[in-house]
Amino acid sequence: MAETMSGMTRSHRCTEVSNENTGETVTLMGWVQKRRNLGSLIFIDLRDRSGIIQLIFDENETDKDGFAKAETLRSEFVIAVAGTVRMREGNVNSGMATGDIEVVVKELRILSESETPPFPVEEGVNTKDELRLKYRYLDLRRPNLQRNIILRSQVATGIRKFLTEEEFLEIETPVLTKSTPEGARDYLVPSRVHPGTFYALPQSPQLFKQLLMCSGFDRYFQIVKCFRDEDLRADRQPEFTQVDMELSFVDVDDVIDLTERLIANVFLESIGVEVQLPMTRMTYKEAMERFGSDKPDTRFGMELKDLTDAVKDCEFKAFTDIPGDGSVRGINAVGQGGTSRKKIDALVEYAKGFGAKGLPYLIINEDGSYKSSFSKFMTQEEMEAIAAAMEGKPGDLILISADSNKVVFDVLGNLRLEIARSLELLDKDQYNFLWVTEFPLLEWSPEQDRFTAMHHPFTMPMEEDLPLIDTNPGAIRAKAYDIVLNGTELGGGSVRIYQNDVQEKMFNLLGFSQEEAYDRFGFLLNAFKYGVPPHAGLALGFDRMMMLMTKEDSIRDVIAFPKVKDASCLLTAAPGAVEEKQLAELCLKIDKSEKEGQQ
Amino acid sequence: MAETMSGMTRSHRCTEVSNENTGETVTLMGWVQKRRNLGSLIFIDLRDRSGIIQLIFDENETDKDGFAKAETLRSEFVIAVAGTVRMREGNVNSGMATGDIEVVVKELRILSESETPPFPVEEGVNTKDELRLKYRYLDLRRPNLQRNIILRSQVATGIRKFLTEEEFLEIETPVLTKSTPEGARDYLVPSRVHPGTFYALPQSPQLFKQLLMCSGFDRYFQIVKCFRDEDLRADRQPEFTQVDMELSFVDVDDVIDLTERLIANVFLESIGVEVQLPMTRMTYKEAMERFGSDKPDTRFGMELKDLTDAVKDCEFKAFTDIPGDGSVRGINAVGQGGTSRKKIDALVEYAKGFGAKGLPYLIINEDGSYKSSFSKFMTQEEMEAIAAAMEGKPGDLILISADSNKVVFDVLGNLRLEIARSLELLDKDQYNFLWVTEFPLLEWSPEQDRFTAMHHPFTMPMEEDLPLIDTNPGAIRAKAYDIVLNGTELGGGSVRIYQNDVQEKMFNLLGFSQEEAYDRFGFLLNAFKYGVPPHAGLALGFDRMMMLMTKEDSIRDVIAFPKVKDASCLLTAAPGAVEEKQLAELCLKIDKSEKEGQQ
Repeated sequence: MAETMSGMTRSHRCTEVSNENTGETVTLMGWVQKRRNLGSLIFIDLRDRSGIIQLIFDENETDKDGFAKAETLRSEFVIAVAGTVRMREGNVNSGMATGDIEVVVKELRILSESETPPFPVEEGVNTKDELRLKYRYLDLRRPNLQRNIILRSQVATGIRKFLTEEEFLEIETPVLTKSTPEGARDYLVPSRVHPGTFYALPQSPQLFKQLLMCSGFDRYFQIVKCFRDEDLRADRQPEFTQVDMELSFVDVDDVIDLTERLIANVFLESIGVEVQLPMTRMTYKEAMERFGSDKPDTRFGMELKDLTDAVKDCEFKAFTDIPGDGSVRGINAVGQGGTSRKKIDALVEYAKGFGAKGLPYLIINEDGSYKSSFSKFMTQEEMEAIAAAMEGKPGDLILISADSNKVVFDVLGNLRLEIARSLELLDKDQYNFLWVTEFPLLEWSPEQDRFTAMHHPFTMPMEEDLPLIDTNPGAIRAKAYDIVLNGTELGGGSVRIYQNDVQEKMFNLLGFSQEEAYDRFGFLLNAFKYGVPPHAGLALGFDRMMMLMTKEDSIRDVIAFPKVKDASCLLTAAPGAVEEKQLAELCLKIDKSEKEGQQ
Repeated sequence: MAETMSGMTRSHRCTEVSNENTGETVTLMGWVQKRRNLGSLIFIDLRDRSGIIQLIFDENETDKDGFAKAETLRSEFVIAVAGTVRMREGNVNSGMATGDIEVVVKELRILSESETPPFPVEEGVNTKDELRLKYRYLDLRRPNLQRNIILRSQVATGIRKFLTEEEFLEIETPVLTKSTPEGARDYLVPSRVHPGTFYALPQSPQLFKQLLMCSGFDRYFQIVKCFRDEDLRADRQPEFTQVDMELSFVDVDDVIDLTERLIANVFLESIGVEVQLPMTRMTYKEAMERFGSDKPDTRFGMELKDLTDAVKDCEFKAFTDIPGDGSVRGINAVGQGGTSRKKIDALVEYAKGFGAKGLPYLIINEDGSYKSSFSKFMTQEEMEAIAAAMEGKPGDLILISADSNKVVFDVLGNLRLEIARSLELLDKDQYNFLWVTEFPLLEWSPEQDRFTAMHHPFTMPMEEDLPLIDTNPGAIRAKAYDIVLNGTELGGGSVRIYQNDVQEKMFNLLGFSQEEAYDRFGFLLNAFKYGVPPHAGLALGFDRMMMLMTKEDSIRDVIAFPKVKDASCLLTAAPGAVEEKQLAELCLKIDKSEKEGQQ
C-alpha cells in the first residue's frame, strides 16, 4: 500500500544538495536508481530530474521500520526521505555532482512501488525502438532524453525571449482551418455541425501570418504545431513544430540578419556554441553546381566539378550523348583510390537509386597511371584533362555522372554524402550554417503538366526577373531563402507578394482559374485590396534544430511523445476505432471496398 | 501600380518619434488613418502598431511628384515617407503621444492602395459582428483589438517567464491523439494509413502531463490549444487555449500558492492590478449555500439565506412540501422593494428557466408592512421571521425558492446574477478572486444511471473520505479546486490519483469494466505500475482570463481568428467541402440519410 507525503515537504532536488548543506536535515523525493547492501548499511542512489544523490540507511541511525522498508526497495520505487547531509567518508565520486556527500536517512516513506521495468532506466542501453516507445514514460526517464526535453524547453524559452526583445508578438492562429490543396496532403477534421464539410489542420500558418501583417501587427512569431499527412521518413512526423515568423516593411537581408542573430543567440546560450556571423550565403545555382544539392553539407569538400568541356570531344558516348539541359560532372573522393571493387559496385548501385544509368569512375594509381571504366574510349590527354579538372592526385577516386543536370546533381550530391558518411567525415560537433538564396520561383511538374510553386504561391519574384513572368516563368528567381545546417534544411522563407496583380499572375502561372484562386485563397486576395505592407517571413523546423543541437540521429529523440513511421503512437495506440455513434453524428460511413479492391 | 520600399529603411515606428528627434530625418511606414487638405498643406495621420503621428506635405517643401501623390492618398493606403521632425506650430494635441510634433515629408511612396473599407478602422464604431469577422484582417487594425492581441502576447510572455523561473519545463504534447469518450465530444481526425481509425484532438493534455510526471519531469507547463466539439456559447470556442500545469511531490496548498503568485505577478506586470494574496478560499458546500453557485461572483452581496427552519410550520404548502434533499432559501434584493410588477414577472419567468415552479416574493414596504405573494398563508410572526432571517429592511425585495437543493441553488444563484446585472453592480475594474475547494468527487447522472466524474476520473479523493469509496461514494469530497474570478471559472485542477488500486476503484465507480478501463486508459494504468510520484495540476482558461483582463464581453475579442457559434470561420469559410479523392484516400463516404431522416 502506497504511503503519502503527508507532513513532508521536499526541501531540495537531489543535486541541489551540496557540501554546503553538511549537517543540515533535508527532505528528498525521487526514484530509486539502484540499491546496494553492505553489511549493516544500505546504499540507495536516488534520482530526480536534477540528477543523483547517494542515500545511506544505517541500522544505527535509521529507525527500525525505515531500515526494514529500505531492504524492500527496488529500482524505480518512488520514495520520500528525510535525513542529514554529511561528507562521504572516502569513496568520493568525482564523476557525480553530489559525489562528495551522502544523506544519512532518518525517515523513509515508499510513495509508489515499481514492477521490474521492461528495460533498465539508464543511458546508452540498447533497447528496441518499439519497446522504448510503448513504455515512453520509462524511456523518458533516461538521462539523455531528460537532457533533450529539458534543453528543448530552454531553447524555446530562449527563442521567445530573443524575439520578444526584438518586439515580436506571439499570436495564436487557428488549428481548425481550411483545406488548401496546394501543398502536401492535409489532415481533415469532419464537422458535426455542417455534415459533409471538413476543417483541415494547418500545414503552416502561412495565410494567417500574412493576414496579421495586413492587420498591422508588424512582427509576428509563434512556436506552433503544423501537420502533414505524408508518408513518414526518419526525420518526419505527422505533427511537427515550427518557429514561425513574419515581419512587415522588410526585405531579404532583414530576415536573414534577424534569423542569424536569433540562431547565434540561442546556440550560444543553450549549448555554448559560437556561431560565426554573418553566415555564408550561396545562390541556389552555386549550391547545385558545387554540391549537387540545395542544402549542401559544407563540413567537408568533395565538391562537384564540371567536366563537360574536358570530355566534349571524347569517344565515350555516355559523356557526349547527354540531353541539352545536361552536363558531365564529377566528384573527387580524395585518397580513396584503394576502394575495393565491391565497394565501388555498391556506390554504382547507390547512384542508380538516384537515376544514374551507370557510374563511370577514374582511379589515379600511386604511380600516376589511370584505372578507369572508360579508359578505352579516351586518349591519355583526355584522361589527364579530367584528372586536372578534378584536381586529382595519385591515390584519388573520381566518380562521374553524365546526364540531365537534375540527375547529375542528384547522383553526385547524394554520392558525396554517402562517401562522407562511410568515411565518417560528418563531425556532429561542427555546426556549418549556410544560406541558400535565389531559388527558382517555379518547378515544372511533369505529372501535373504545369508549374508548381517551389516554396509556395505567395513568394515574391526577384524584381529584376519580374518581366520574365510573361516570357519565361521557369527562369524567374524568387526572393526565397533557406537556412541550412550541416546539410539539413533548418528552415526557409521568402519575401511575399503584396500586390494583388502579381498574386493573380502567380496563381495564373500555377494553372488556377480566377475562380479557383478565389475559392481557395479568396480571403487573402480580398485582404490585398485594403492596404498591404511589404512583408517577409521564415519558419524554422524546431524538431530538426533540436535534433542537431542534441546531436541525435532522429527527431524522435527530441519529441516527448513521437509517432512511428506509420503515423501511429505505440504508447496510446492512436489512431483507434471510434464508436458508431460518433461517426453517425458526423454523417460518415467507413467504406474500405475500393482500397481492398486495389490490394 | 504599387511602389517598392527599395532603398528605404524604416527608422522608427510612428510613436517612437518624439520631440527629442526634432530636426532629424526619419523614415516611417504605415497606414493612412486620415487625410485633410488645408490650402497648400496636406495633413496625414499615419498609423502603425505603436499609434499615430501627423505628417505634413507642404507644396514648398515636398517634391512636386510627392505632393501630387499625397493628394491621392485615402484611408488605409500603405505608404513610406522620409521627412524631417519638427515641433508643431500651435495645435498641439495633448491626447496623442506624438501630439507636439509633426513630420514634414520630403519623399512619399505609395506601397499599397486601398479600396474603401467595408467599415471604418476606428475604435468604438458599431459594426455588425458578421462583417467584422468576415473582414477580420481589417477589424484587427482597430486600436482596441490591437491592444487586446498585444496584451495577450505580453501576458503569455509573462506567464512563461514566471513559470520558467519557478523551474517549470514547457513540454509539447501531441495534438493527434486518442479518443477518450469520457468527457465532452471529441474532434476526430481520420487516419489515411489505417483506414477506418481516427485520431482525436485533445480536450486537454491531461493524460500526457500525468505521464510526464511519471517520467520525472517534476514541473510541466504548456500554453496549449485544446478542442471540444460542443455546441458553442458566448464564451466557448471549438479550439481554446489553456495554461496547463502539473507538478510532482506536491499537495493542494502548493498548487494554490503557485497559481496565486502566478496570477498576482501577471496581473501586476501586465495591467497594473494588485491582487491581494492569499486569495479567499471557500468550500464547494459554502459556495453553494451562500451564493447558489460553485463559481460565485463576490463583487456584490445578496447572499442566499436558509429559511427552511423559519417557515417549517407555516401553511404555505410550497414551502413545506419540499423534497427530502430540498430547502427553502431566499435572497434579499436590498432597496428593490419598488420593483414594478412587470419586472417581478420577468424575474419569475427567468427563475422558471432554471426549474423553479414559481418565485414567491416578499416586499417590505416603507412603513414596515409586508406585501407578498404568500401573505395569506402566513402569520405576521412567520413573515417577520422570514424578514429577520433575510436581514430585510423597509424597501427591500426578498425572493424565495423552495425545492430540491439543486433547483434552489440554481434558481437563486442565477437570479442573484440577473439582478446584479440589471442594477449594474458588476464593476469590471474590480477583480475578485476566489478558490472553491472540496468539490464532490462524483455526480450522479440520471440519464446514464451512473456516477460521472465531477472533474475527471483521475481526481484524488480527500484522504479522510477514502473509506466512503465502498460505502457512500456520492459523499466523497475530492482534492479538487477551482479558481474563480468575478463569477467566471478561470481554471481548475486537482491532486491526482497515483495509486493503481485507487484508480481502478475510481473506474469501477464510473461503471467501467476492467477491460473498458484498460482499453481507454491502459497506458496510464500501466504507467502506474512503475513508480509514480504524487502529483497535482491545474489548467487556466487563457481566453477567459484575457477577456477579463481586457474587460471585453466576449472571448472573440481576445482571439485573433475566432469562430462563430456554429463553429465556422467567417473569414476563411472553414469548414468546407473537400475533393472526392481526399475522402477516398480516407475510405470515408458522406451519408446524410439518417440526419435528413430526423429533420
